[in-house]
Amino acid sequence: RIMSILQEERKNCTFNRLEITNLLDGSAKATENRRELERFILSFPELQDKIPIDYLSHEDRYAEELRKACLLIRKGFEAPGNDGQANTMRYLMGAGVGSAVLKEGNPLAVHFVMFVPTIMNQGTPEQQMEWLSKAWNCEIVGTYAQTELGHGTFLRGLETTATYDPTTEDFVLNTPTVTAYKWWPGGLGKTANHAVVMAQLWTKGKCHGPHPFLVQLRDTDTHEPLSGIDVGEIGPKMGLNTNDNGYLGFKSHRIPRTAMLMKYSQVLPDGTYVKPAHSKLSYGTMVFVRVVIVSDACQQLMKAATIAVRYSCVRKQSELIPGEPEPQIIEYQAQQAKIFPPVAACFALKFAAFYIIDLYQETTQRGEEIDLDLLPELHALSCGLKALSTTDIGQFVEVLRQSCGGHGYMSNSNFPRIYSQVQAAYTYEGENTVLWLQVARHLIKSYKNGGNYTSSYLSEKEIIRSQKLSGNIYDPYFLETVFRRTAFGLVRRAAAELDRLTAQGMNPHIAWNKASVLLIDAAKGHSRYFVVHNFNEKVASIKISQATRDVICHLRDLYLVHGILAYKGDFIMFGGLSDLDIVGLQSRQSYLFEQIRPNAVSIVDAFDIRDEILNSTLGVANGDVYNRLMEEAKNSPLNLTQVHSSFQNYLKPFMNAHL
Amino acid sequence: RIMSILQEERKNCTFNRLEITNLLDGSAKATENRRELERFILSFPELQDKIPIDYLSHEDRYAEELRKACLLIRKGFEAPGNDGQANTMRYLMGAGVGSAVLKEGNPLAVHFVMFVPTIMNQGTPEQQMEWLSKAWNCEIVGTYAQTELGHGTFLRGLETTATYDPTTEDFVLNTPTVTAYKWWPGGLGKTANHAVVMAQLWTKGKCHGPHPFLVQLRDTDTHEPLSGIDVGEIGPKMGLNTNDNGYLGFKSHRIPRTAMLMKYSQVLPDGTYVKPAHSKLSYGTMVFVRVVIVSDACQQLMKAATIAVRYSCVRKQSELIPGEPEPQIIEYQAQQAKIFPPVAACFALKFAAFYIIDLYQETTQRGEEIDLDLLPELHALSCGLKALSTTDIGQFVEVLRQSCGGHGYMSNSNFPRIYSQVQAAYTYEGENTVLWLQVARHLIKSYKNGGNYTSSYLSEKEIIRSQKLSGNIYDPYFLETVFRRTAFGLVRRAAAELDRLTAQGMNPHIAWNKASVLLIDAAKGHSRYFVVHNFNEKVASIKISQATRDVICHLRDLYLVHGILAYKGDFIMFGGLSDLDIVGLQSRQSYLFEQIRPNAVSIVDAFDIRDEILNSTLGVANGDVYNRLMEEAKNSPLNLTQVHSSFQNYLKPFMNAHL
Repeated sequence: RIMSILQEERKNCTFNRLEITNLLDGSAKATENRRELERFILSFPELQDKIPIDYLSHEDRYAEELRKACLLIRKGFEAPGNDGQANTMRYLMGAGVGSAVLKEGNPLAVHFVMFVPTIMNQGTPEQQMEWLSKAWNCEIVGTYAQTELGHGTFLRGLETTATYDPTTEDFVLNTPTVTAYKWWPGGLGKTANHAVVMAQLWTKGKCHGPHPFLVQLRDTDTHEPLSGIDVGEIGPKMGLNTNDNGYLGFKSHRIPRTAMLMKYSQVLPDGTYVKPAHSKLSYGTMVFVRVVIVSDACQQLMKAATIAVRYSCVRKQSELIPGEPEPQIIEYQAQQAKIFPPVAACFALKFAAFYIIDLYQETTQRGEEIDLDLLPELHALSCGLKALSTTDIGQFVEVLRQSCGGHGYMSNSNFPRIYSQVQAAYTYEGENTVLWLQVARHLIKSYKNGGNYTSSYLSEKEIIRSQKLSGNIYDPYFLETVFRRTAFGLVRRAAAELDRLTAQGMNPHIAWNKASVLLIDAAKGHSRYFVVHNFNEKVASIKISQATRDVICHLRDLYLVHGILAYKGDFIMFGGLSDLDIVGLQSRQSYLFEQIRPNAVSIVDAFDIRDEILNSTLGVANGDVYNRLMEEAKNSPLNLTQVHSSFQNYLKPFMNAHL
Repeated sequence: RIMSILQEERKNCTFNRLEITNLLDGSAKATENRRELERFILSFPELQDKIPIDYLSHEDRYAEELRKACLLIRKGFEAPGNDGQANTMRYLMGAGVGSAVLKEGNPLAVHFVMFVPTIMNQGTPEQQMEWLSKAWNCEIVGTYAQTELGHGTFLRGLETTATYDPTTEDFVLNTPTVTAYKWWPGGLGKTANHAVVMAQLWTKGKCHGPHPFLVQLRDTDTHEPLSGIDVGEIGPKMGLNTNDNGYLGFKSHRIPRTAMLMKYSQVLPDGTYVKPAHSKLSYGTMVFVRVVIVSDACQQLMKAATIAVRYSCVRKQSELIPGEPEPQIIEYQAQQAKIFPPVAACFALKFAAFYIIDLYQETTQRGEEIDLDLLPELHALSCGLKALSTTDIGQFVEVLRQSCGGHGYMSNSNFPRIYSQVQAAYTYEGENTVLWLQVARHLIKSYKNGGNYTSSYLSEKEIIRSQKLSGNIYDPYFLETVFRRTAFGLVRRAAAELDRLTAQGMNPHIAWNKASVLLIDAAKGHSRYFVVHNFNEKVASIKISQATRDVICHLRDLYLVHGILAYKGDFIMFGGLSDLDIVGLQSRQSYLFEQIRPNAVSIVDAFDIRDEILNSTLGVANGDVYNRLMEEAKNSPLNLTQVHSSFQNYLKPFMNAHL
């Protein structure tokens, strides 16, 4: 009976699922490649857990994940790599099929995602020759060590020093204080034997700021730390517990001059420092990593939405009409209000991710002829989308988990893990609040001096200010102008506050701080407007059947309407909406919920996430949720015996003590 | 140097910390009693972890926590119990000193929090005689088994049956399907040997709905499950992993007639069913548990706020003015906006908890003469406060964690655990969305038929509608009226939507569902108004020095202002606020941040949470954060050796494979 509930749901599908799958993968070919890689990787039983790692100790979890990580990469090299091996590796490190193998984190991920790319981007041709093939073949295993115990996103605050000694042509690495310890790098704790280390470069008595050095940490044969190196694991975290994030300190540790990655800056044998031609040329890696984060966060949201939508159809609870049988909980509007907006957001954010991937490739494919004009735009957009996607997805995932009641609290629902991984992304590679303020700086500049690209509307002050607001709330293009007006209003409001404070004679930097709450609101408003604008553009440009387009249009409309209702104060204050418009949008939202309801399961089916990757008792494709929960419970090591040894040891003496 | 940062902060204190401590404890005596119990419990080294349980396997964690749970209760019986032992036990089970011993959950908590109280509230005098002292002395260990794998808050949906057999004067317990398995009860998995089981009572061929039965599950000597009983542990969860939540199924398991808890309903030997006099008399336990949840959630928020405020003073990052040293991050407005509203909410929600505790005691101390008129009020208020406090506190805790950057992600910050425990409370003892809708039902009734107590304002329709809105946004009593008007407007809006839908001929139950989003908004608006009203009342009534009152007034003002800005759309639409008022409130908020800043550390100091209970590297009272983080890391079992065995087993062969 339960088996058939999701089949019943699928009968209601009005569109072509594969069209949506292809759209979200990027192309039909991309879908095929992904599926082929998934089939290949999931065909190896030795890549699966014997017992879920949640049952293991911290130490055993690490060992088990390292075993599978080594094996996964071997398989990756043998995989049908139609996209090229670099892409295959990247896919294996992310939230896709790799996460079916290494659920709690991959101790070798930073090696591929940051160590290898940094050598490629920052090493000279000679350095690449020396290290790149060894790194690619995993003869050496590396990490990227930037953050310190007392220092995060603010690079200039780093304390680790690399002091050049021209007599030996060495750099001497030192960790002057406890706050200077490198802290967080993934794979550093027990796995990596090399690292790119960011350190303050001193030469000829002068500090030239942080620069990258390629440092061997451990003997490649014995794995013992080299002398002068203090390295270890930082301990348990909210998630990603098998990434063996580590700490690293140096005590007068010497490395040769040639260990400095010298593609941009150089130190000559005599200690002369040579500056790079352009200070912003090393931007690329950071932008690239943010792009990857946005895509990965979307994949996490698709997982969470798939689980919640399917479970909401399987789960029956309470009564809609007294005396009638318990309905599927997806019939409750309160439930639809929790689960449908995140489904819509999957599309909005995925399309935004596509846009920035294209922009990034366009910018970087010009190679040395990089368009420096485009860099601020690329920087601001990647910051805004990273912050917006990880913030919104974090909240959506929690709402989806809560929508599954108590069972969403079970580890085997996979919600706790998905949440913990999205939350890591909230902070790493640029803490979101810091990023919002960087976006705001770009917006205030654009507002004052004229913007271009996605902030060009900030230059059209007079046009927007005078533009008569008319249109109807059923029209997504009208709603887009409401988002634009609101973003504009928020930027103008923040700029006005800055002006007001500085007019009082306040130092502009202090004024910036005192206006931060408004500046962050402006940055969020702008980023939301961009996502909405891009969603409309995408819908207008895709070639797809009418039935499928209808489904996407309903989701697009919901994304817009929900986005307005969630921050309706801003839209009333700056978007020109009236109380009556809000009431109208509330009815419109109810209507859209009803339109989406019959296709809900088919839409998440179109995300095309295999059960092994979903890794959720609640989200199984066949809907056999309750038997899966029971099977998993029966596997608990605590259930191997009826009476656990702790009974004799502790409970029985306690009960017999007659307190 | 780092040691002294928090001492510097404390020099700025303008008020008497002990006054706030006493206020939050309830009285000076309550503070003394709490501190004495804490000193006593924390004096036993055998109650402390040898290594943090996060490093242990699921099985070892359970065993270690069971060991300490047994010991903790023994100590509890020996403790200086000035409040009475029942209060001591309750305190030991909650987020106070008990959580310093049993960080991840107490397998014996449900025994004291639900099993014992249920026997007291639902057992006949004879049944209490038979079971109560054994239960109190822990000769038997029990749990409370209501929720089933397929059934949550909707009691009538329960499937477990207790069918009376008059020939043997037995009830026969059965679990007809997999969805009928009891699922979730804390302590059920491996610890409890008894349970109160809620089952559908069948007698003489008729079902009389769910009733409580006291069932022995395991042999008290061998701990083996009795025949016909299938019991085990459900596996890992987002948190509370040592509570050994369990599953339970019956196969024609017989219990005597007298095992039914018969204080209200009865089954006579011949099978005749006797109804209770009042159907709502068994309300009490549920209300009581919700009251406990609100208090406990406040305690969790106080912990999180203490950690974040202290760490925000210790942590230095970036630059406010270019070239100057890195400032304490608490100087950033964006940081203040994250950490000060939760501090204010500690007071608001704690005072609300006091109100409902008093109301509960007032209601129940009349004993049999219970005021039935007050029950709907007590029910609605306890539902609303449970839902509001766990929802808001859940979000606040996450924001506080995020405000601590990457280090907030470390388990030893204690944020992940605090969050996981607050999130459990979001769902248990009434899922919050279900509770909101129950509050809404009470409000719509009050709106239509006239409300009383905290919803009496809903009757003053005409007064409020005609009331000229005037006042200034600096006046907390004016802001209170804004909250009241908004709550009223939200209720009226939801009622209007219900009317509109039923006027179209829609079934009222369907209409209720289609208006759910608006109904939930109304319930939230009402509950927020109550908390604000109660905060004002409390501030007006407390006897306290002016300096301390000033601090509390700033926090009260911030709670109000922040509450309006967070949902400003509602306050513009229904509260009569203009765009200019909002702009004024934004400035007011900045001003309040500045007022609170110098006292921030002293305010959280006044929460008076000992380091052992805070259990956070980031929140230590002496501010020595970085050394604590490093010490903890050095204790990781992975750091016991330089080279983990997994290197030889997996990594070395992999590196040598020359892929």
